[in-house]
Order: sequence, then structure tokens, then C-alpha cells
Amino acid sequence: MIVEMRRGATEEQINAVVERAHTYGFETQLNIGTDKVVVAILGSDTGRVPTEVFEVLPGVQSVTRIMRPYKLASREFKDEVSLVRIGDVIVGGPQIVVIAGPCAIESREQLLSTARHVTRVGARMVRGGAFKPRTSPFSFQGLRGEGLHLLDEVRREVGAPVVSEIIDPHLLDVMVDHVDVLQVGARNMQNFTLLRAVGRSGKPCLLKRGLASTVTEWLQAADYVLASGSAQVILCERGIRTFETSTRFTLDISSIAVVKRDSHLPVIVDPSHAAGHYQLVPTLARAAVAAGADGLLIEVHPDPTNAMSDGLQSLTFSDFERLMGELRLIAQAVGRSL
Amino acid sequence: MIVEMRRGATEEQINAVVERAHTYGFETQLNIGTDKVVVAILGSDTGRVPTEVFEVLPGVQSVTRIMRPYKLASREFKDEVSLVRIGDVIVGGPQIVVIAGPCAIESREQLLSTARHVTRVGARMVRGGAFKPRTSPFSFQGLRGEGLHLLDEVRREVGAPVVSEIIDPHLLDVMVDHVDVLQVGARNMQNFTLLRAVGRSGKPCLLKRGLASTVTEWLQAADYVLASGSAQVILCERGIRTFETSTRFTLDISSIAVVKRDSHLPVIVDPSHAAGHYQLVPTLARAAVAAGADGLLIEVHPDPTNAMSDGLQSLTFSDFERLMGELRLIAQAVGRSL
Amino acid sequence: MIVEMRRGATEEQINAVVERAHTYGFETQLNIGTDKVVVAILGSDTGRVPTEVFEVLPGVQSVTRIMRPYKLASREFKDEVSLVRIGDVIVGGPQIVVIAGPCAIESREQLLSTARHVTRVGARMVRGGAFKPRTSPFSFQGLRGEGLHLLDEVRREVGAPVVSEIIDPHLLDVMVDHVDVLQVGARNMQNFTLLRAVGRSGKPCLLKRGLASTVTEWLQAADYVLASGSAQVILCERGIRTFETSTRFTLDISSIAVVKRDSHLPVIVDPSHAAGHYQLVPTLARAAVAAGADGLLIEVHPDPTNAMSDGLQSLTFSDFERLMGELRLIAQAVGRSL
Amino acid sequence: MIVEMRRGATEEQINAVVERAHTYGFETQLNIGTDKVVVAILGSDTGRVPTEVFEVLPGVQSVTRIMRPYKLASREFKDEVSLVRIGDVIVGGPQIVVIAGPCAIESREQLLSTARHVTRVGARMVRGGAFKPRTSPFSFQGLRGEGLHLLDEVRREVGAPVVSEIIDPHLLDVMVDHVDVLQVGARNMQNFTLLRAVGRSGKPCLLKRGLASTVTEWLQAADYVLASGSAQVILCERGIRTFETSTRFTLDISSIAVVKRDSHLPVIVDPSHAAGHYQLVPTLARAAVAAGADGLLIEVHPDPTNAMSDGLQSLTFSDFERLMGELRLIAQAVGRSL
Repeated sequence: MIVEMRRGATEEQINAVVERAHTYGFETQLNIGTDKVVVAILGSDTGRVPTEVFEVLPGVQSVTRIMRPYKLASREFKDEVSLVRIGDVIVGGPQIVVIAGPCAIESREQLLSTARHVTRVGARMVRGGAFKPRTSPFSFQGLRGEGLHLLDEVRREVGAPVVSEIIDPHLLDVMVDHVDVLQVGARNMQNFTLLRAVGRSGKPCLLKRGLASTVTEWLQAADYVLASGSAQVILCERGIRTFETSTRFTLDISSIAVVKRDSHLPVIVDPSHAAGHYQLVPTLARAAVAAGADGLLIEVHPDPTNAMSDGLQSLTFSDFERLMGELRLIAQAVGRSL
Repeated sequence: MIVEMRRGATEEQINAVVERAHTYGFETQLNIGTDKVVVAILGSDTGRVPTEVFEVLPGVQSVTRIMRPYKLASREFKDEVSLVRIGDVIVGGPQIVVIAGPCAIESREQLLSTARHVTRVGARMVRGGAFKPRTSPFSFQGLRGEGLHLLDEVRREVGAPVVSEIIDPHLLDVMVDHVDVLQVGARNMQNFTLLRAVGRSGKPCLLKRGLASTVTEWLQAADYVLASGSAQVILCERGIRTFETSTRFTLDISSIAVVKRDSHLPVIVDPSHAAGHYQLVPTLARAAVAAGADGLLIEVHPDPTNAMSDGLQSLTFSDFERLMGELRLIAQAVGRSL
Repeated sequence: MIVEMRRGATEEQINAVVERAHTYGFETQLNIGTDKVVVAILGSDTGRVPTEVFEVLPGVQSVTRIMRPYKLASREFKDEVSLVRIGDVIVGGPQIVVIAGPCAIESREQLLSTARHVTRVGARMVRGGAFKPRTSPFSFQGLRGEGLHLLDEVRREVGAPVVSEIIDPHLLDVMVDHVDVLQVGARNMQNFTLLRAVGRSGKPCLLKRGLASTVTEWLQAADYVLASGSAQVILCERGIRTFETSTRFTLDISSIAVVKRDSHLPVIVDPSHAAGHYQLVPTLARAAVAAGADGLLIEVHPDPTNAMSDGLQSLTFSDFERLMGELRLIAQAVGRSL
Repeated sequence: MIVEMRRGATEEQINAVVERAHTYGFETQLNIGTDKVVVAILGSDTGRVPTEVFEVLPGVQSVTRIMRPYKLASREFKDEVSLVRIGDVIVGGPQIVVIAGPCAIESREQLLSTARHVTRVGARMVRGGAFKPRTSPFSFQGLRGEGLHLLDEVRREVGAPVVSEIIDPHLLDVMVDHVDVLQVGARNMQNFTLLRAVGRSGKPCLLKRGLASTVTEWLQAADYVLASGSAQVILCERGIRTFETSTRFTLDISSIAVVKRDSHLPVIVDPSHAAGHYQLVPTLARAAVAAGADGLLIEVHPDPTNAMSDGLQSLTFSDFERLMGELRLIAQAVGRSL
């Protein structure tokens, strides 16, 4: 950390900075410039300390972080890529893992027909929401427990692992036996109670990026899960909130490259929530594969015009099949399989 | 709702829109223009239905909402201003209610000395966090149960109602007897499980705006609380996330006027989290009072340089006292008291 | 346009809306709902009229646009894709057109060596800035007239068309004989004097998206150029400003699909300015090709560590050559060539 | 500037950083930490050098600026507040200067009646646009030269200085004799050719903040004007672009405090463009005065419902008069006059 003192800061003020650094076990080095004094705070874990510990001291003008504020998710902590294994599916390896299925589980027939179709054309895992977080209290809130039992059928009959969202830490006991990957939604990315509970469960966690979260905050959220015991986190970019309104969110395609550079965790992309409209989903899916995403999370529905949730962003069976064919070619072009 | 059909939409496609409207009990009216057909969907509660119910139909180009997507929080539902009463404190009336105290409760001495000071110079309620949501898992997480008992002392000794944040619906039983107003933090504004639990408790709720939430989504979140039984919601603007980095968040001062126009709920401002720095807090507090805020939520600490959380944005006792004097003059200038 | 009246709007107020519509030559249709009256304003060019013409009238609650506010750039105005021809280069056709070269022209050797290299490995046009807009008045401002003469040498010796930025309408006479495509930079996207001048010149225009401009505003800016006589506009997405700071801007990859849906104009991507760092450029370039961009604008420099401008986002010769190889495979995977 | 080297950076790479610093005349100091080496670049004008001069060197991980990238506009360059004098009007002193008038000059009667009214109730200067930058090429573009002559009449008859926007550097000769303050609009804040021309004219400049510009970039733009010879710059906050759509822009009220802290230049607020709706203008104006703005720029029109531009955000004569009365009370409450 670099502490810049104001012009005219007193020796006493500079010493207070140095002493505070020592209480954290850090070393310091003074740079006495022509205009002002700069104190470098040195140590291997300065990233753990908030900058305001120093900013709040009298005579301090600004504090700049050199170490990143996350640790367990960082490349510096672990340099080789982490592979997340769910049964025989590996996320982070040469194969791009497509996870597909309906936004919300609506019925046995709806879920199973979708699961059969998407796995037949190449999806490796099935998604389906049993407990739904909805912006309005008057919207459909999910089949809940009944939905979980339908996910069991998918695992048995279709033989694919399933991903489902957890919206309350106290649902963990209910969900843990029915779900292979626990999804933490964008609106819960900083629900720290939930992150810790998921981490303690030991289940793989699919951690969506908050819609107003920086990549740094996303990796801090991953640290919560990792610090609670889990070693298995899959990051999922799903679009951020910007001033642009022609899409529901703005897919931050660059974040894939940033995550790959700064973290060892695998990262996938959800083109459905980013786009908000089925016509735009294939473009974003193609871009994600070309950009190096380790997988995709795509909403598919047997009859989107009658879906109870997010029908507008769901692909039909035939659209999904066509898209998988296109993605396969791009995957090969970037040296991967699908 | 206004459904615009594509050029060349077929009669069958138009009929499908009309029929779907009828299934919701809405009336329709066709506008057959030179270029395209527009279907107006009419009814008193079209705001409850997501636009995508129609957007997903073939031949539809766009759907525009006329009714707002929230109901209970709207001026149309209730025209007179709602007053929230906590003991003898009234939020939403002529008096501007200042709520002050430390970010996190750290000790008996810290909380009580602050409570005594802030109420002596005019604060009507005391804030203090017992359970702290923190961006990093390595930061101080609050005194928890012990903090709640210290809040009891504030109520007994200082005689002021207390506000504290709830971060998990399952803490409701633990908190409900120790806290007069349950605060829902910005990161939990769309934690719908939590909103419902707080609504069912019947306690007044201080609902912070999410850092990437529109005013409309904020009022939808208020609807969750109101629909769960509570009639007492205080909105709290605390800054939104933008590209500007010279402040921690960007205080959306306009939102006060927008909320006053569109909703009957009282709205207060948290200048501390918006600014992120104690030097900027007084400016934002003054602006909020002039803009018509019904109250302020201000962080005050006996010794900010040694605070365990958010020290940088906390005012000292003397700074707070000076600010209260300034605010009193502005309150009078806008026809209110403090 | 849809004009929603307030509840309780008077007949006189409704008539005023209808009369104003008639003064513009539009037809109207009234929807008298249970709660409120909605007036539909019908006509083939309502997009030309600002919504506030009606919003400002007493009794009006809101006005919603159905027609888009741009015309000449829209798919509705012209349905088939526009091809922009520069010599034998066609932008918008099956071949993805790569334009490469230095940010700023620094010397004869620098420009010509780069031009030779990039065209040898597949770039179809050469870029190079002679007049540079810089954020700080103390930065290098370009070789100016001398730079234009060096661009002539590129055309003669390398045989490739050249693209260069125009920053002042009064430079048109100076530039028009030396440049094949006039680039309008992001910061000038709404410099309407400049847009008109470029349109009148008849030269093809490469129109960068403003860093805080919506796709709609971008197409309105294209309308300025098109309305001034030019038929040749190439749009260029270069990233928008968001809260994320890990990249210089956030590439809005979705905008490619939105532009393709709503406009007939070709659209290319500038991964260099979006990323701001050479390490991230290849990822964004790959994503752009997969997303359907008609071309790329890439900064290449013989010695980026000594570049006078934007060295950090410039590729070396060997990096560019490697990237071209990768892009060729992706272009084939999406049915195009490079 | 602080240059952080990658872990494992070679001595040769570190030396290259040091040598480059020396070529700029800077001193350096090495901090050799446990993990990595940090090079501090010291000197009184490191703010002039872009960070990428170092970022581009091999082995460098990141570069952090300590000196701000603007100079002439900074408090460090000039500590006492700059007063801008236009005739007997002083901007930056104890009196809050209100500038009012129509968005666009439409006719002699419209401009003069407005000028007489606004000055009678306390405005010190009159605004009126002669050359209008409009988002659509099909909108009214201003009375141009005729408008300038009407501004002369305002100066003669009403005796108030006038402010008008310049949209093209080549209009300077035309405008300079008719206008007391040259306004640079938000969309031209980084039109550097224009900034330099205005600076050379010696006229006071009212510099609006770009809608996606940080405070730092705004002060860099001020540096362009100041470096070109002018000593008279008035900054004007007018709202930034964010995800919130209930107002046209989001007024960044905090920027007033940030500018006051970091710069010696006076700063005023334009509540009309920020709000986009006349109902919200008074709230923003009140907040601006309480926050310490040195003035206000407010749109007033004799008949907003028939205005040719921005009628929706214009106040009527009586609304403006009422607002001035309210603002006078708030000005007194913060120790100023109006």
C-alpha cells in the first residue's frame, strides 16, 4: 500500500502512519519527495487491510492499494488453473461445458423434455430454478420442493448433473441432496451469509457476478466461498448494469480475459440474462466461446411463448440445437471442444 | 401496456396478442396505423404483468409499459403521505429526523457515549450495526448478540429508538425485541426472502436503495415489504454506482424529488455511505435537507481514526455538532424543523 | 407516439394534445381506459418529433416513442445491408476487413514499416493519426500536415487505402485529398458541425460510438452524416464508460447484434481502445469476429514501449501476425473470410 | 508515480523503469518488498506524464498516479479561490450568481421579455443559445447570427452580461463581440480545438462537465482553456449519464464539494439539463445552493409549452420567481446572498 501524505504533513503525522503499519506487522519505507512524503507499506498480505485504516489518519492525502484485496481466488495465491469436477464433467479444461435448461421449473414434462433435448445435442449439465427470486412480489416464485424432486428425476433419467439457484442459506439442507452445483445469483453476490453457507456445504458453487460489481468485488465474493471450505467455484459473467438500454444488461466480454489473467478459477458466461432477448443470445454465446469462456449457461424452454418466467430470453429446442452446431465450430477454431 | 406489432404482422399474430390480454382480464384497443398496428392493453392493474408476456409472442416488435410495475408504494394507490411512527418520533412530517451513531457497535462505551452525544445535539434516533455485512471475509463482522444488548441499554438510558441492520431473515427472532427499526442494506435490497420476513415482522423497515437499482426497482422492493403486512417503510437513498470515482458512490439527489412525486413513502438520505469520506459528508447532508429529505442517517464515532469499520466516513462528535447547527438553519429555510 | 394523460385530465387538455398532433400532420386515436385516457399519435415520421412536444402540455403524464428517433440509418428506411466501398475493399460483405496501424503517425519509418507489415499479414486498410485529440494539453498532438503526406506514401507504396481521424471541420480541405476514410472519434460523435462537414465531403466516414452514447444516439449521429449527403458510413464500437475499471472501457459486444438488427450500416470493432491494454486486445478481437463484426480497427506499432501515444494498447508486429492467424480460423467458423 | 513490478521481474527490467524515469528528469526510489519490487517515481510534475509510459515496459504490473493529471486548475497550483469577473458580476464570491434565460433564442420578444423578468427577480446574467447543437439533424438549429444581435439588445436594454454557447472554434470571431461568457457544452468538453480557441480569446469560459466525464477529466479540460491564455473558467455541473432513467441525467451533487477541495475554480450547477423536467428543477436548484455552488444556470421561457427547444425543462416566469424566493432563504442559511 502506498500512503501519500499532504504537503506540509508533520513528522508526527508521518510517524503515526508508520506506527499503524507496524501494528499490522508491515514494514515501511519513506520516499521524501520535493513536494511531499510518500510512505510505502510493505508486506505479503497488505491486501487484507482496508485502505481506510490509513486514509483516516491526519495528514494523509490518499492511499493506493498495490496488493489486490482478494487472496484465495488470485493467481498469486495459486498459479495453475483450477478445474471444477462434477461427476465426469470438468469445468476449466479443454471442453467448453454448456449448461442448459429452463429458467424456472414449471412441470415434470417441461423439465424432462428440455433436459433430454439439451443433453442430446451436447449440453453437459442441466439448469432449472426451483426457488425463484423475482423483482415483483406478484410474480411466480417457483415450484420449490417439488422442483427439487424433478431435478432428481433429471439426474436419474437423463444422467446429467444439475445446477439450481439457492436464495436462502437455510435452504441448504433442503437442496444439498438434490443439486450438484449450487448457483448464487447476481442479486446475492454480496449476500455474505449465503456465500459462507454455500462454502461450508462443500458443493461446487456457480457464482454469478453482481450486476453492479467490479471484477475485483466478484473475486472477493469468491474468497468468501473459498475461505469457508469449498475449493470449487465457477464464476459466471451475466452482464452488468450500464446506461445502455437496448439490451437488458451489458455483457462485459472483457471480464473473461481479466478473470483469466488475475484468477485461477474457471469462468463461464450466461448470454440469456445479459441479452434479455432470445434474438441476441446466439451472438453473445458465440462471442463468449471465442473470448475463451469455459462454459455457457443458456435458458431453453419447450414453449417460450408460454413460459412462466423469462420466456423472452429462452431459446426453443431448434434454436438451441442450431446454436450448438455453430458453437462447436468456434470452439474448434479456438482449439477447444464442445 | 402498448404492444407495437412489426410491419407486416399477420392478423393471426395480432389476434394472439388480443387473446392473451383477455386471459389476464384486460381490454384491448387496436390502432391501425399507416405502417403498423399498435395494440393498447387496458386495465387498472396491467402493472402487475411483465411486459415479456407479450414481447415473446410472434410478430411483436416492442411492448411499452404505461402503468408502473409497483403498486402498494405508489401515489396512485395511496395519495396522502405516509407517516412512520417510532415511539414519539414521526418520519415524514415537518420535522427532519436525524439518525446517528457508529457504523458498527464496538463496545459499550463507544456506543453509549455516541448515543448520548448525538441525541443531546438533536438526533432523534440512534443507529449501530450488530451484524455487519463486509465485502471481505477477513474484515470485522460485528459484535452480534452482544451488540443487540448494548442497543437495549441505549433505549433504556438514552431513551432514543434504535435502528440496526438485519442481514439474514433467520435473525429476525433474535433482533426483533432489541431494535425499533429494521434496516435492510443496499446489498440486500433484492434479497426477497429477507424483505418478506421484515414485512411480516410488522416492525418499521428502513429500506436502503440498491447501489445499482433504479427508483422503480426500489419501489418494487418496498412493495415486497408492504405486501407482507408491514405498513411502515422508510426509503433511504445512499448513492448509486457510476463511473465517477472521486466519491465512493454518486448520491442521486434527484431521487428524493422522484420518490416524493411517485410514492407516498417518506425518504431519507445516508450521506456517509454515498460520500465515503468525512470531509464530503456535510455537503451532502446540507443538500439532502434542502432537497426535501425527511431525514438523515449519519455515521458518528468517538474516535474515527481507530474505528473498526467505516472510520473514514464517520464524523467526530464536534463535526457532527457543527453540522447539526448548519442543518437547522437550512431546515428552517425550507419550512421545516430539525 | 403514445401520450398517456394523467388521471382526471380534462377534455380541454386531451383536445390540446390532439390539436398539436394535427399541426404536425399526424392522426390520433383515443383509448379511453377505466382509469385514464391514452392518445395514440399515428404517422409514418413521428420519429422526427421530440417527445417533449407533447410532454410539456398540461395534463400529460408521459409520452412513449414507438418510431425510433433516427431514420436514414434504420432498417425500416432501407432493409438491405449497405456495403461501403473504398477502392477494392468492401466493408459489410463476407470478408471481415481489418484496419491496422499506429495510433499516431510518428515518423516515415514508423508508419511505412507498420503499413507494410500489417498489409502483408492480411490487413486491408491502414490507420494512422495525423491530428491527435489528447486529454491533456501537454501531450503530443500529432505530426499534422506532415503526417498526411506520409499517408500519401502509404497509399502509393503499399497500395492500401488509409483511415485518419478528423478533429475539426475546417481541416476537411486539408485532409480530403490524403485520406480515404475520415474517422470521427468517440469524443466528437455529437460534434454536429463536424458530422455535417464530413457528410458533405462525400468521403466514407468511420463513425466511432461516443463513450456515453446509446446505440440510438449513435444511429442519430449517423443520420447527421447521411442527411448531409454521404451514403457511406461505417459504425465502430469502441467501448463505453461503465463503473468497471479493470479495462479502460467496457466493450459493448451486444451492440453489434443490436446494430445489425436495427440498421443497414456495417459495424466494426476497435478492441484496442476498449481494452486499453495489449494483453486484452486479442480476446476482444476474437469475440468481435465471432459476434459478427464486419471489421476490426487495431493499433499496431513497431516498438510499443517507445510509442508517443497509446503504446500500452498497441500490438507488436509479431503479436498482430499471430492474432490474424487466430482470427482467420474464427472467421471461417462463422462463414466469413478475413 | 508508483510502478509496481511483477513478481520475478528481472534487474534489467527494473533498470529500464529507472532509466525511463531519468529521461523525464524524475528521481526514483526502490522499495524491495518480500514479494515484489516497487519503484517510486518522484518529481514535482509527474502528473504531466501518462502512466502508460511506464506500464508499457516489460515486467511492469501496474502504475499508480500520485500527482493529479491536471495542473493549472489544481489547488496545488493556486490555493486561493479564483474569482471570475464579468462586468460588475463576480462568480466565486459570497453572492450566488443566477444565470437565467431561454434554451434557444427564438425571437426578440421571447428573449427580451425573459431577460427583463429574470433580472428583475434577481438573475445577474442572461443565457440564450444562438447556435444550437441538437441530437437530431431534423431539429431546430438556432437563429444563429440574428440571435447574437438580440443578445446585444439584452446587454444594452437590460444591462446584464450574456452567456451563449459556442459550438465551433471558427465561430469565435462572429461571437466574441456579442457575448460576455462563452459556454462550452457538455458534448464539446473534450473538443480540444474548441477549448484552445476559447482560451485564446481571453473571454470568460463557462465549461460544462461532459456527461460521461470524471471530475478529473473535467479539470483536465479546464487546463486546456487555462493553458491557452485565459484565466477565467467557470465550471458547470449538469448531470452525468447513469443507469437511472427517471431523470434525464443524474446530477452529481457531490462534485461541487470535490471541485471545491481539489480546484480553485468556481463551480455552478445547471439543474435544468440534469433534471430534464421542470417539476424537478427547483429541488435540484435548492440542493445546489445548499451544497455550496457558486451559481446556477436555469432555463426560463415565457411559454414553455410552445418552446422550440427544451420546453419541458424550462420554468415559467412565475415558477422562476417563486424559486428565487426559496433560494434566497437557503443562500442566507449557508451564509451567502443571492
